[in-house]
Amino acid sequence: MPKYAIGIDFGTESGRALLVDVADGREVATYVHSYANGVIDERLPADAGGVRLEPDWALQDPNDYIEVFKQAVPAVLKASGVRPADVIGLGIDFTACTMLPTVADGTPLCFLPQYRSRPHAWVKLWKHHAAQPEANKLNEIASRRGDAFLDRYGGKISSEWFVPKAWQILDEDPEIYAAADRLIEASDWVIWQLTGRESRNLTTAGYKGIWSKHDGFPPDDFFRALAPGLEHLVDDKLSREISELGAKAGGLTTEAAGWTGLRAGTAVAIANVDAHVAVPASTVVEPGRMVIIMGTSNCHMVLGTEEHIVPGMCGYVEDGIIPGFFGYEAGQSCVGDHFAWFTENCVPAAYEREAQARGISVHQLLEEKAGQLKPGESGLLALDWWNGNRSVLVDVDLTGLLLGATLATKPEEIYRALIEATAYGTRVIVEAFEANGVPVAELVACGGLPEKNKLLMQIYADVTGREFKVSASKQTPALGSAMFGAVAAGKRRGGYDSIFEAAQYMARLKDEMYQPIPENQQVYERLFAEYVRLHDYFGRGENDVMKRLKKIKADVLQG
Amino acid sequence: MPKYAIGIDFGTESGRALLVDVADGREVATYVHSYANGVIDERLPADAGGVRLEPDWALQDPNDYIEVFKQAVPAVLKASGVRPADVIGLGIDFTACTMLPTVADGTPLCFLPQYRSRPHAWVKLWKHHAAQPEANKLNEIASRRGDAFLDRYGGKISSEWFVPKAWQILDEDPEIYAAADRLIEASDWVIWQLTGRESRNLTTAGYKGIWSKHDGFPPDDFFRALAPGLEHLVDDKLSREISELGAKAGGLTTEAAGWTGLRAGTAVAIANVDAHVAVPASTVVEPGRMVIIMGTSNCHMVLGTEEHIVPGMCGYVEDGIIPGFFGYEAGQSCVGDHFAWFTENCVPAAYEREAQARGISVHQLLEEKAGQLKPGESGLLALDWWNGNRSVLVDVDLTGLLLGATLATKPEEIYRALIEATAYGTRVIVEAFEANGVPVAELVACGGLPEKNKLLMQIYADVTGREFKVSASKQTPALGSAMFGAVAAGKRRGGYDSIFEAAQYMARLKDEMYQPIPENQQVYERLFAEYVRLHDYFGRGENDVMKRLKKIKADVLQG
Repeated sequence: MPKYAIGIDFGTESGRALLVDVADGREVATYVHSYANGVIDERLPADAGGVRLEPDWALQDPNDYIEVFKQAVPAVLKASGVRPADVIGLGIDFTACTMLPTVADGTPLCFLPQYRSRPHAWVKLWKHHAAQPEANKLNEIASRRGDAFLDRYGGKISSEWFVPKAWQILDEDPEIYAAADRLIEASDWVIWQLTGRESRNLTTAGYKGIWSKHDGFPPDDFFRALAPGLEHLVDDKLSREISELGAKAGGLTTEAAGWTGLRAGTAVAIANVDAHVAVPASTVVEPGRMVIIMGTSNCHMVLGTEEHIVPGMCGYVEDGIIPGFFGYEAGQSCVGDHFAWFTENCVPAAYEREAQARGISVHQLLEEKAGQLKPGESGLLALDWWNGNRSVLVDVDLTGLLLGATLATKPEEIYRALIEATAYGTRVIVEAFEANGVPVAELVACGGLPEKNKLLMQIYADVTGREFKVSASKQTPALGSAMFGAVAAGKRRGGYDSIFEAAQYMARLKDEMYQPIPENQQVYERLFAEYVRLHDYFGRGENDVMKRLKKIKADVLQG
Repeated sequence: MPKYAIGIDFGTESGRALLVDVADGREVATYVHSYANGVIDERLPADAGGVRLEPDWALQDPNDYIEVFKQAVPAVLKASGVRPADVIGLGIDFTACTMLPTVADGTPLCFLPQYRSRPHAWVKLWKHHAAQPEANKLNEIASRRGDAFLDRYGGKISSEWFVPKAWQILDEDPEIYAAADRLIEASDWVIWQLTGRESRNLTTAGYKGIWSKHDGFPPDDFFRALAPGLEHLVDDKLSREISELGAKAGGLTTEAAGWTGLRAGTAVAIANVDAHVAVPASTVVEPGRMVIIMGTSNCHMVLGTEEHIVPGMCGYVEDGIIPGFFGYEAGQSCVGDHFAWFTENCVPAAYEREAQARGISVHQLLEEKAGQLKPGESGLLALDWWNGNRSVLVDVDLTGLLLGATLATKPEEIYRALIEATAYGTRVIVEAFEANGVPVAELVACGGLPEKNKLLMQIYADVTGREFKVSASKQTPALGSAMFGAVAAGKRRGGYDSIFEAAQYMARLKDEMYQPIPENQQVYERLFAEYVRLHDYFGRGENDVMKRLKKIKADVLQG
């Protein structure tokens, strides 16, 4: 009798369940449930008084996550006709850091009437950026104290991460902070809801929570240096017990079995992060093969056998992606977003009409026109910093640059230059890893963009000079979660004993791959040298014009 | 009885006649005649065999100029009801360098059946760029020889000018060169047709023909160094007799009186250039007030009392604009063209729809939206080099740059940044003049753009920190030509004895002027400092990336 596993991918706007054949990773059924309250960034819901939020806030409603269990899991069971008894395991992945305050039994503070109208009682979504003041102070203090953990995170803790978000609660609503018996990643919280048992996964702890296998959390005196009230954050509201990836969190409770239609006791895996879980789902469980999740932004992940400080990466965590390896992560803040901005703001009406007449999208038209150009033919070069630079410069205040335009420059030439710029940015990251002892021999793509844009894939192969393969799954994170569900079940119950084994059977690449074309590579070598020179000139302090322009803008807007 | 003068402005596509009241410059009637053969840049006309032209060629048909006399002058006489006897003088201005080969009596070689199908027998229009190889060789040779004249032209002779064009004829069709008894500016040729007498005006000789009052033409050994066949170019085919501006070339011949409907003997002024004749028509006959003709490109002219080498200007000519002064000229290659490029290639369909719905042009919509922005608010900065840089860098291989874009950048912000970039470029020119002894206290605009774009005018005032006034005439060159027509007639015949006197009575400014706004100036000081730093970094050899990208492009296109 075939056995199945379910993976659930909690995204920014919706949750997706995927039911997978454990034997070969075949994707049998999938269902997407949109969150009723979506991203809460203007006002709290009406039943919470409709309180207006400050700029840069982004909240969610934990009930929306429970609804994914209630709607999406029964839907895939129904669509597939698979019997609950044949579903051996369940795994989930989540955006991160997405965190919330709860009381001791796991009830979110925002579920309690007395706190419901208090914004800090709700889930802070990964893209909640209102803890920037706390992040700035944290970095300043850690840097002054010489706290070594900064090196693991490219020198900076992001305002998106756990400690700045926790600190913002204390800063702005100390009563909520005091009422929160637990502060917890939403990923771990949903596992708690499924299993009745609190656990803390290693991936979010490591990448977002300043935890490491070797050093644990920063010492209490670091937290005290931030704010006296934070001194006992870890012991009071977090946990020092961190669960390894691939472990089983527990079995489904009777209540959760009722929500999902699965059997009570079904194995549930320790939580994971959407990006990281995509790595084994893209067949990568060994060093040397970088996975790039390409969507609105790029996330680069590669495994290493040794610990290396690579300047400007987002972070590295021992066992953080695949047990037994250091999991290195880097990122580019503006990829799909970049092309979307261009299409929305810079493509003339004539192109829109042409696309309409031909029944294709403007993106497709641009890809087609840009694909007819040779590398270097446009004379254009861009710096891909429309949304700052994450790796390797870790600087949100950098901005975009386009150089080389003439009166003959066409929209498709600019579009191609923007794609090329993101490819150069990826090459900078690849070379930073290699220069610091983390080899990258091959690239594997997953995410939305590789499906849509073959031109982009070829450019990345040409620019990086590396074979670029593509994950066979269109929903890699959900597949990865299902794989961890199969590992949580274990071999005796029809699953696998390790993620390595699961990857061997359940993950696949497409047959189609992208090989560097030597004549393109030659041209891109020359262009990349120009990119690096501009990258360093504008990005490493030689000419801080981008920051000064931002300062002028801020001064002007303040009056 | 009121007296009248007629000015004729020979443009690129058409010729315009303007009939003006001599007493006060009132514009009584105007008429535009489009050239039947326009710009000939693909094939010679059918009756010349339809011979295909090489790239970069741009020719004209001299008969089209005669047709302007035959059509446009009678038309303004008819429309105004002015009697021919009351028209005391006629002046013309022309594009330059626009030149042609003729036989000794002035008949163009292209009128002769045996040469009609030979491209080199036709008029080479100012924007004929096929003499670039000759210009390059000329500059190299002059530079090697240390010919001092280069300093008068910002270090470079343009491929658009007279000697490279003449040399191209010798290079490519020596038989035509040999058959040409005269090589002559079209401006002087039309005066020859009107008066029956060859003359050579000082303005084109000075600005386009490497002639100066002090040194005359370069010596014969310079021409021999270019090519042995060119050694006697000046004595064989040009003339060393150069006529001062404001002089009378002669009286209308009976034949020309027949064409125009004017009386034989009517005073005809020495020819002039469209840009230069606009200076007195904009009320400027003294140092310190720079005239900027703003259209597809900007042309900056200012008078000085002394001779100064100003690095990067287009040229200076003693008596070249107004007798008694050194006439300095500089330019920006991409102004109106810049905004046209942007509107055509970078404005999204939504904006086009909004403009249509409101019954305004896309330019108007952009101006309105851009006008709502404060200086510095966009965070953008551009280098206005989409068509190279004429002054002060004299480098056609420079290209455009846009810096500071984010995912929130809107089209109107880019549009405003492009306008600002051209204003910074003008300020660089103004400051180069001032730093080298040529004061610029005030700006006066004429041409098409100032009429259309008040935002642009205010930005120029703010960026340069100078009052910016606007010529009252919408057809400044034709008015200037009419003024020189009145001067050719002289006071005794109802005209004026000098251009100074004519300017006092016939030229006017609009009442509306643009004053720098102090708070804008403060912001633009900061932005201009950033512009200059990028200008020097990319324009003065610190990072020649723009040239290297052009080289890569050329290499790629050659295969």
